Amino acid sequence: MNNLDIPNPDRQSWRPGTMLYPLPAVLVTCGTSVENSNMITVAWTGTICSDPAMLYISVRPSRHSYPIIKETMEFTVNLTTAAMARATDWAGVRSGSQYNKWAETGLTPMPGQLNACPYIKESPLSIECKVKQIISLGTHDMFIAEVVNVLADSQYINPETGAFDMARPGMLVYCHGGYYEMGDFIGRFGFSVKKTR
Amino acid sequence: MNNLDIPNPDRQSWRPGTMLYPLPAVLVTCGTSVENSNMITVAWTGTICSDPAMLYISVRPSRHSYPIIKETMEFTVNLTTAAMARATDWAGVRSGSQYNKWAETGLTPMPGQLNACPYIKESPLSIECKVKQIISLGTHDMFIAEVVNVLADSQYINPETGAFDMARPGMLVYCHGGYYEMGDFIGRFGFSVKKTR
Repeated sequence: MNNLDIPNPDRQSWRPGTMLYPLPAVLVTCGTSVENSNMITVAWTGTICSDPAMLYISVRPSRHSYPIIKETMEFTVNLTTAAMARATDWAGVRSGSQYNKWAETGLTPMPGQLNACPYIKESPLSIECKVKQIISLGTHDMFIAEVVNVLADSQYINPETGAFDMARPGMLVYCHGGYYEMGDFIGRFGFSVKKTR
Repeated sequence: MNNLDIPNPDRQSWRPGTMLYPLPAVLVTCGTSVENSNMITVAWTGTICSDPAMLYISVRPSRHSYPIIKETMEFTVNLTTAAMARATDWAGVRSGSQYNKWAETGLTPMPGQLNACPYIKESPLSIECKVKQIISLGTHDMFIAEVVNVLADSQYINPETGAFDMARPGMLVYCHGGYYEMGDFIGRFGFSVKKTR
């Protein structure tokens, strides 16, 4: 039987939806200083170009951080760990218009290096970004940004090789409405074509 | 001591780079028919809008799939599992100009529903997309697309609730050059504000 010519009875066809997973759930910081700053949880984020290094975040215009980012044209993406899961979820559910998210989550703002907004001390890696373009798409506006600086927590850097071991802090994975830990290692990029002696 | 006023000695500042993780490593299918199709592995992908449901993929113009997608203005995103890790890695390292990737990976092309290009039978969920805009950024061009159809493997749908259990197939996670399984469940979106009786 040629399975190319018949429809697949094992598939259900759904209405269009946001079903691309697994994703990072990052804490995006913004503001003009450590004292005047906010954070927002974002899963609609991704790398869009390798060189220059660029990424995007998509944010609803109704969110408290939206006008802040639009005004300052910068934000910092802070990667999250399983230990930060509760704070990450909380910052995505609550609004900076009603809460001081630093006080409520217990996360620590540290002065940015190339950004005026702080980064999060507890994050293993923070990515300072400058907005290049804003595209309105519907419920969300996409902030297209260039990476200007990467701040990595030294405790995860191998002192001999200088390599950053991103698996060690235990990254947080967001998948279809659920938070997960990262699981077992399978292989390095290119493992499928590696010659074995 | 006020840690807001001193620089953090525990951070190393790096040159700009693509350090946003964990990410999905999806198999993107393209082409004009099941017989005339290709696949390419993409980690530079993400949801950019909830309604209308939109996502992007970023692809180097030198890739074999690039002119195919530009010509047909459609592609299908196929989510990947740990069981598909070897095929996913292989399709990202090898070129469709030199190999028939279907034959080499053993993956099965199935006729698309709203797209002319096939989807991958072994993928738990496939997302048919139509390209709306192409933005040149540098090494990569970003294909901004609208989701037109979602094809879900029935074996992961709970027959009683109709809910799709995306954790069950064992999703593949890509993090900083390594492939990983998805690990332990932490909580549902909103768990940090859930009242306990």
